[in-house]
Amino acid sequence: MQAEIITIGDEILIGQILDTNSKWIAEELNKIGISVYQISSIQDDRQHILKAIKEAQANADIVIITGGLGPTKDDITKLTLAEYFNDTLVLNEEIVAHIEQLFAKINYPFTEVNRNQALVPSTCIPLKNEFGTAPGMWFFQKNKVVVSLPGVPYEMIGLMTQSVLPKLQTTYKLPFILHKTIITYGMGESMLAEKIEDWEINLPSFVKLAYLPSFGTVRLRLSAKGATYEMLEVAIASEIEKLAELINEIIVGFDENETIEMVIGQLLIEKGQTLAVAESCTGGNIAKRITSVPGASRYFIGGIVAYNKMIKIEELQVDEKTIAENSIVSAQVAEAMAKGIQQKYHSDYAIATTGNAGPTTDDTDKTVGTVFIAIATPTTIFSEEFFFGKPREKVIGRATNKALELLRKEILKN
Amino acid sequence: MQAEIITIGDEILIGQILDTNSKWIAEELNKIGISVYQISSIQDDRQHILKAIKEAQANADIVIITGGLGPTKDDITKLTLAEYFNDTLVLNEEIVAHIEQLFAKINYPFTEVNRNQALVPSTCIPLKNEFGTAPGMWFFQKNKVVVSLPGVPYEMIGLMTQSVLPKLQTTYKLPFILHKTIITYGMGESMLAEKIEDWEINLPSFVKLAYLPSFGTVRLRLSAKGATYEMLEVAIASEIEKLAELINEIIVGFDENETIEMVIGQLLIEKGQTLAVAESCTGGNIAKRITSVPGASRYFIGGIVAYNKMIKIEELQVDEKTIAENSIVSAQVAEAMAKGIQQKYHSDYAIATTGNAGPTTDDTDKTVGTVFIAIATPTTIFSEEFFFGKPREKVIGRATNKALELLRKEILKN
Repeated sequence: MQAEIITIGDEILIGQILDTNSKWIAEELNKIGISVYQISSIQDDRQHILKAIKEAQANADIVIITGGLGPTKDDITKLTLAEYFNDTLVLNEEIVAHIEQLFAKINYPFTEVNRNQALVPSTCIPLKNEFGTAPGMWFFQKNKVVVSLPGVPYEMIGLMTQSVLPKLQTTYKLPFILHKTIITYGMGESMLAEKIEDWEINLPSFVKLAYLPSFGTVRLRLSAKGATYEMLEVAIASEIEKLAELINEIIVGFDENETIEMVIGQLLIEKGQTLAVAESCTGGNIAKRITSVPGASRYFIGGIVAYNKMIKIEELQVDEKTIAENSIVSAQVAEAMAKGIQQKYHSDYAIATTGNAGPTTDDTDKTVGTVFIAIATPTTIFSEEFFFGKPREKVIGRATNKALELLRKEILKN
Repeated sequence: MQAEIITIGDEILIGQILDTNSKWIAEELNKIGISVYQISSIQDDRQHILKAIKEAQANADIVIITGGLGPTKDDITKLTLAEYFNDTLVLNEEIVAHIEQLFAKINYPFTEVNRNQALVPSTCIPLKNEFGTAPGMWFFQKNKVVVSLPGVPYEMIGLMTQSVLPKLQTTYKLPFILHKTIITYGMGESMLAEKIEDWEINLPSFVKLAYLPSFGTVRLRLSAKGATYEMLEVAIASEIEKLAELINEIIVGFDENETIEMVIGQLLIEKGQTLAVAESCTGGNIAKRITSVPGASRYFIGGIVAYNKMIKIEELQVDEKTIAENSIVSAQVAEAMAKGIQQKYHSDYAIATTGNAGPTTDDTDKTVGTVFIAIATPTTIFSEEFFFGKPREKVIGRATNKALELLRKEILKN
């Protein structure tokens, strides 16, 4: 079964927006056994849209279109789809009611422009958009599917997850594909590749491996395609067992959608323990990651973003002499910060960061990219020095991941 | 002058790799007056490559191909290009010498596989790759250009910057293109569209408008194409002036790469004033955004992520009675938090958030999506109630943007 993805929007063609939707859709389609033949980004232009759908349908059974469904004038996708299917737009009262409800909730006036969003081609099945006003549209003709989705990523993801992927699975008989992701923290991609080279070479031919690196973490994805689900499960489990023997200490989890902050949350809930953070160079990013997990209030007490030196001294009880003698970016300051927040917030664990995210060294004596991370546990405090390069975004991202990695290891020890 | 971009590589079609090359190339081409008609990601497959180049040449004068030039077997681009141009591969001694030199530098053995990289179609002009072994290839036939570049981003960027872009500018007489972005905060896309409808309808035909919405903010992009740069500048400036009369109060800036946190930083530096934050439901995201700006330490004192109720009471001096009488998610608590952090951190301004990001209401009595944002200025404190819907990520994102928007307005008043 083959699919094509079409992304509509001039903003991609002028290079203003990075198309992350296609990657997400391609990944999800592959997971359910649908391969992607081509991804095309095209203009918000009637003729171009008509041509692209026609070409895509020549190669693929399934065409997924994103973008061009907003309420404004530059969005002509819906009209063009009606034209392509020789159809007319009709007002869908269910969608009107849904949009009215959304607007009533946020106390916004419901305008004629919004009402137009409830117009859909008569032959499509409208797909309810939980997170926005533009509905998705499902066309099914001659055993071929065309789906049109809004370009806003979380709206597209909501519609794909809730409607499109399940509907594709019931519409077509798809082969069995099993994916399993191994989340690793703390080893770079090339070193990891060397370490597991023999294992990788000896994988059975129906099992494929992909490396997915991000800010110092690597997800390994195994994909197996075959006749029965059971056979795939056995094969993948056996390969993961062999892999775990090689890199057990860096494996953080196995659920693809699981993040290290979720793993930490689960561990803390199980142990009935709590966490607080004191951040300098990461500037709130660690707290942000931890609180991105629903229910984080059960174990996360809170944090201090100690950007100014005075906050480190007055709020975290870092001794002024410690700063003067060791530099504000130092192991001693990181550990004092961790101890300070742990005591102040009465938490079992604490994370602290101090470093230089760049681009300038400001008033510190350390090179850009240098970060000290300290972890306080119920029994000990320690810190490590890291060099995360540049740019600023990478330093903050990698420092955050490393801090969470160190914390997880400590919680597991206790 | 039109171009198409073709990206070759299965890793993009299985969703393993995000295609950042196309965005970069599209942006650079637009800057020199070449518009991009389509971007296509295709498979490492002879027939698919032949078909894609043929289709692209039907629409565009310039075809830029990336990927599929590595030394390994699955890279068949070069052979297919020779086939497309009815050409044969010949050994280029200059490239042999360049590759030998590269390998000598890193003390690596030079193998037959590497020597093959110096084979290029006889009719192309090879482009020297400073950062790798695979040369770029420039084909020019019937006034049309086809360029093939390696997929490694820094190699591609090096070749585009040093060879391809300058060669395109000397090969063709290019028109001028001018883009200008207007960043707005605080009005939804549909309401904004209604407000500026007349202005939009009356835009000159050579000026195009695009709406780029994200978490409650909308960037408006004007693009103009014409014979002289000066004419375009005058036309765009005049349109922006008219637009500003309609929506002046929501315009935050005009630099495409400028964020509201940068604007706030600049304002605070100019006024010599400081900021602190107290975050509950945004969980550190506001601090993270503010500290994403290099040099934020000049005006950002720091913040408290007051996740646990006790932190609000003990660290921010929120009266327990205020919480009991009004709920933890209330205007009174938000204002008390803002006042608390402003006094504790001795800042001129303070932001505070308390709300329910969901998915569950936890121990609060407010619906998921309800957020109170308070702003403390040198002279006053106020708060507003918002409803940001769901999911969690959207609530946090929109609350953060709204808080920054409210803060900017206050700083401008003082």
